Amino acid sequence: MTTERVETASESDVDEYADLGATTENAMDIAETSMDRVRELVPDETLADRVRQKSVHATGDPEFQHLVRFTGETDDEPVVAGARAVLEERPIVTDITMVKAGVTGRGHGCPVRKAIGNGADLAKRTGMTRTAASVLELDREGVYDGAVAVVGNAPTAALALADCIEDGTRPAVAVATPVGFVKAVESRERLREVAAARGVPAITNVGRRGGSGLAAGLTNELVHVASDVRNGEVDLP
Amino acid sequence: MTTERVETASESDVDEYADLGATTENAMDIAETSMDRVRELVPDETLADRVRQKSVHATGDPEFQHLVRFTGETDDEPVVAGARAVLEERPIVTDITMVKAGVTGRGHGCPVRKAIGNGADLAKRTGMTRTAASVLELDREGVYDGAVAVVGNAPTAALALADCIEDGTRPAVAVATPVGFVKAVESRERLREVAAARGVPAITNVGRRGGSGLAAGLTNELVHVASDVRNGEVDLP
Repeated sequence: MTTERVETASESDVDEYADLGATTENAMDIAETSMDRVRELVPDETLADRVRQKSVHATGDPEFQHLVRFTGETDDEPVVAGARAVLEERPIVTDITMVKAGVTGRGHGCPVRKAIGNGADLAKRTGMTRTAASVLELDREGVYDGAVAVVGNAPTAALALADCIEDGTRPAVAVATPVGFVKAVESRERLREVAAARGVPAITNVGRRGGSGLAAGLTNELVHVASDVRNGEVDLP
Repeated sequence: MTTERVETASESDVDEYADLGATTENAMDIAETSMDRVRELVPDETLADRVRQKSVHATGDPEFQHLVRFTGETDDEPVVAGARAVLEERPIVTDITMVKAGVTGRGHGCPVRKAIGNGADLAKRTGMTRTAASVLELDREGVYDGAVAVVGNAPTAALALADCIEDGTRPAVAVATPVGFVKAVESRERLREVAAARGVPAITNVGRRGGSGLAAGLTNELVHVASDVRNGEVDLP
């Protein structure tokens, strides 16, 4: 049982983070100029390129485009799967509060929830991290099937998500960019292997970098692609 | 008038992000191993080194230690000022929700609040960004004087904070790491100039990188130093 309140986008107080969602004149100028600069640095051909652009935008580093990995039949597949999930208003489930706070409240009707806060008993009983336990607990409740599963911070959450996928869970797409020196690299490698084997589309990165801001940014790009589909500017295959 | 609820640490639901605050066996192993690895890569002599270590920990990039800048008589000064502010339970004021969500709920009694959500009228009237307007509005209420002022996302918030300091506001310390291709670099340069001229200690970075996770991590390191002072492990000058 979870006692966490599930916020829908309309209730969310995090509209302000929507980088597509600049509302004042000044902010709109900045947002446009910023993405224009990114487009000078990153190809703009495919849906996967949009995610690469977003990785550069979120990290401030032009080279980050080369660190993004797409698990699927094509690089576009996880982006298409993510946009479809957003259009179908599937849950967006993040590992920690900070990533949830970074997911835009605009342009979608998906419930946004976080894993952390669930599974406290399991963590206490087993000694596993609270984030790992929280993922396993939500998975037991069936939350991850069909969801946009996002891990921005905790390598152990990415490892737990990989275990769930190995055991039969099928997120619509996994977005995982945990950061750091212990298990971050390995957790993403393992997630890519399991996701590829089980046919779960995934967007991840290589290397030790990553983090909550990146995970939220990439997730928001899935929302943006979905918005463009809704507006007739993009056709999904 | 602000209608935002000010959360104190004990009410916060973001305990889980406390990187010092690993509670399960597994998490404690990971946290210790992770900081051990960082200490192999970054000097461990001064209080400023702790902030440099934290920047590496938060970004997953050993080279980030060279991108951190300290504004003050010495590199340690902003760290000392930040730790003192935490011990005095001054407010920690972030620009956006995501940074607030990343500030640890443990080891301090500081109210943690965010600027965004305030100053909507000002933004509408002037066309300035909502984050900039929110900083100016909170400053009008006197919130930033003596506070730990944190900007993780919005260059315009850092510019607004610099304006406030130029106009006489005196935060205990400013922590600013906005990320991106438009005004991020310039906003931090301007903040450093104004902070140096007005005697406000500051921790910032150079280059386009940065972001919410970094800002929260550096702020949490100020909390950790304060905890070590409280425990008698560190003496402030």
